[in-house]
Amino acid sequence: MSEVRGKAALAKAAAQIMNRLTTNEKNEALLALADALVEHRQSIIAANAIDIDRGRANGTSESLLDRLKLTPDRIQGIAEGLRQVAELPDPVGETLETFERPNGLRIEKISVPLGVIGMIYEARPNVTVDAAGLCLKTGNAVVLRGGSAALESNRRIVEVLREALAGTALPADALQLVEDPSRASVDEMLKLNGLLDVVIPRGGASLIRNVVDNATVPVIETGAGICHTFVDESAAYDMAADIAFNAKVQRPSVCNSMETLLVHEAFASQHLRTLADRFLAADVELRGCERTRAILPEASLASDGDFATEYNDYIMNIRIVDDLEQALRHIADFGTMHSECIVTENAVNAASFLQRVDAAAVYHNASTRFTDGFEFGYGAEIGISTQKLHARGPMGLPALTSTKFRVHGNGQVRG
Amino acid sequence: MSEVRGKAALAKAAAQIMNRLTTNEKNEALLALADALVEHRQSIIAANAIDIDRGRANGTSESLLDRLKLTPDRIQGIAEGLRQVAELPDPVGETLETFERPNGLRIEKISVPLGVIGMIYEARPNVTVDAAGLCLKTGNAVVLRGGSAALESNRRIVEVLREALAGTALPADALQLVEDPSRASVDEMLKLNGLLDVVIPRGGASLIRNVVDNATVPVIETGAGICHTFVDESAAYDMAADIAFNAKVQRPSVCNSMETLLVHEAFASQHLRTLADRFLAADVELRGCERTRAILPEASLASDGDFATEYNDYIMNIRIVDDLEQALRHIADFGTMHSECIVTENAVNAASFLQRVDAAAVYHNASTRFTDGFEFGYGAEIGISTQKLHARGPMGLPALTSTKFRVHGNGQVRG
Repeated sequence: MSEVRGKAALAKAAAQIMNRLTTNEKNEALLALADALVEHRQSIIAANAIDIDRGRANGTSESLLDRLKLTPDRIQGIAEGLRQVAELPDPVGETLETFERPNGLRIEKISVPLGVIGMIYEARPNVTVDAAGLCLKTGNAVVLRGGSAALESNRRIVEVLREALAGTALPADALQLVEDPSRASVDEMLKLNGLLDVVIPRGGASLIRNVVDNATVPVIETGAGICHTFVDESAAYDMAADIAFNAKVQRPSVCNSMETLLVHEAFASQHLRTLADRFLAADVELRGCERTRAILPEASLASDGDFATEYNDYIMNIRIVDDLEQALRHIADFGTMHSECIVTENAVNAASFLQRVDAAAVYHNASTRFTDGFEFGYGAEIGISTQKLHARGPMGLPALTSTKFRVHGNGQVRG
Repeated sequence: MSEVRGKAALAKAAAQIMNRLTTNEKNEALLALADALVEHRQSIIAANAIDIDRGRANGTSESLLDRLKLTPDRIQGIAEGLRQVAELPDPVGETLETFERPNGLRIEKISVPLGVIGMIYEARPNVTVDAAGLCLKTGNAVVLRGGSAALESNRRIVEVLREALAGTALPADALQLVEDPSRASVDEMLKLNGLLDVVIPRGGASLIRNVVDNATVPVIETGAGICHTFVDESAAYDMAADIAFNAKVQRPSVCNSMETLLVHEAFASQHLRTLADRFLAADVELRGCERTRAILPEASLASDGDFATEYNDYIMNIRIVDDLEQALRHIADFGTMHSECIVTENAVNAASFLQRVDAAAVYHNASTRFTDGFEFGYGAEIGISTQKLHARGPMGLPALTSTKFRVHGNGQVRG
């Protein structure tokens, strides 16, 4: 049996125990994991140093190496995250519906764990702990397949966590790490129907594309975000400028940042020059439609390809539109249904935008950067779903549950 | 552009109108569709006759032809189904959560249509109308791809329905029928990410397998059911016999019927001979484990392959088990997580079974045949989900919705 299949089978067996744990047992285990990480931080940092050295030798950029790097402080922070997950309400075992049928059958709909969750992700080793914590809290087993750049770190982290689980009510086998760094191990995970109940990819566009294109296991797609801010005719200048600037510049590398600014022509003729200067002062490269370039000659011409690109960088498209309808059309054509914003003082236009834009999160007069599990008050998130099935937008703990019907009878048969 | 892609694009455009309809507009349209079906029943029956003749010429069995056949009464019944869907509550536009964040952001979670639903199904033309009604009621557009055996019937039905939609607030393009009978049209639908939001297969195991294996669009898997009835030591004989007999014999061809009877050894030694005679009298073929055959010499030996087969027929496996644990093990190994039943007078065993069996519906002292949207009181069902994502078990109207977050701010930016 391959490593992947073998570990998934162990996880599936463990899931049948996970399924029966009390909230207390799960929370105590999370606290034990947090303590173990802190206790073993030196050996984790030593393993991490191997990844860092190999990365540097392979020419990995310093900014990526910084994301990969673990320090005592960062490990404290990661452990604190586990403690916070322990504090969250347990979404498993809730009675979601209960009803009685005329024939006397009493039916309950109960929240249950999903079972075995496959996580496929890239470099940062903190995802290893975060994902483990969220999956175990919700009574799931998890098969982690992290990026090869963090393999030594992940190996040591999972070793520490599994040793710690051995002293709790949770089976150590509920936590599995796939160590095979080849693409083949990912491909195999994607086809493990019957062993994995869901695969969640987290990472760049090509990782997610590969999972969506090749998985036969159900997938929760996360991540890609071509988000827009539409500044309407009636927008207040300062508010519009602050929201647009925040959406683009506060952290351009993430999925809820803005890629394209849509500006009503009346607002543009009055304010676009001033607004653009603020972006230029922050070293944002501007690409614009023809009408934009009439106002901002320094902008290069934005192609349809540009409008369809998630830059995740200090680059922004600008398009001047005639009205709300044209803005809605552009968002329907180029958006990825992630996060979309209108800045307006016109309540009718705001309501229309919120109603008609088909996205996980639609904003009136606030930055798209708020699409985030912590910002929504969910306390933690496993990712941001960009699909419509099962979960949409920031996924808190309930997104890691399913349901089952318990039916209580006294001999009913169907006529 | 291919037929499939062209029709899906029309459906996607229509979905943006469907999204904004009132409950009244949708209900009135459903009533208009019902009236149109009855009014045009003669031309529908004429088209159906072509399918029937072609089927008969191709050697289709009379029982399959009967499922394909439309009569004035059956069309009345199908129209009545649409009227009943009109009566059901509209699950779209509900505020599912609402909360305010410390920074003043007010967040609402709203139920919304899924968007465009692809349905891939087999012969019976009533599915064409049922699926259309459920999808339109929930504000979705739908692309139907029925079986080629019903092509003429489906073509005429959809023509009638689209003509009727033209006189309502709903866009006719929200209802599309793929007429290309080749496998290629199915394969193309499965990859229409960006146009279809979900694909729901309904039909036999090979149809569903093909969809699950090849779709890149999210899928709701339906259908396969290897269901068990476990008769525990303490079961009352009459109740156990009635439930098991109903689960196997009342309608063996459907997914919630029983394939394997698990019997506690103490119950078996006392009652299995009598129970088996009831099945034999109903012409059920029995296959059993070695211990079963010691009591029922006429049973053939059941292989692991038999235990893993959904017969959908008058064939049943019997296995004698030592205890609840062994029954649970068997169900975990061979079940398809559809519907599972324990018959027992022992409350502890009942609770343990309901807790530990991982299935969409778990029964204590009632037949598995109740796993059905109508029997659950949902009024209609688009299918029975056998996956854990999004929906599990009988899927009523809410299973055809997604959610979005509406966020109301007054200039908030992220710090």
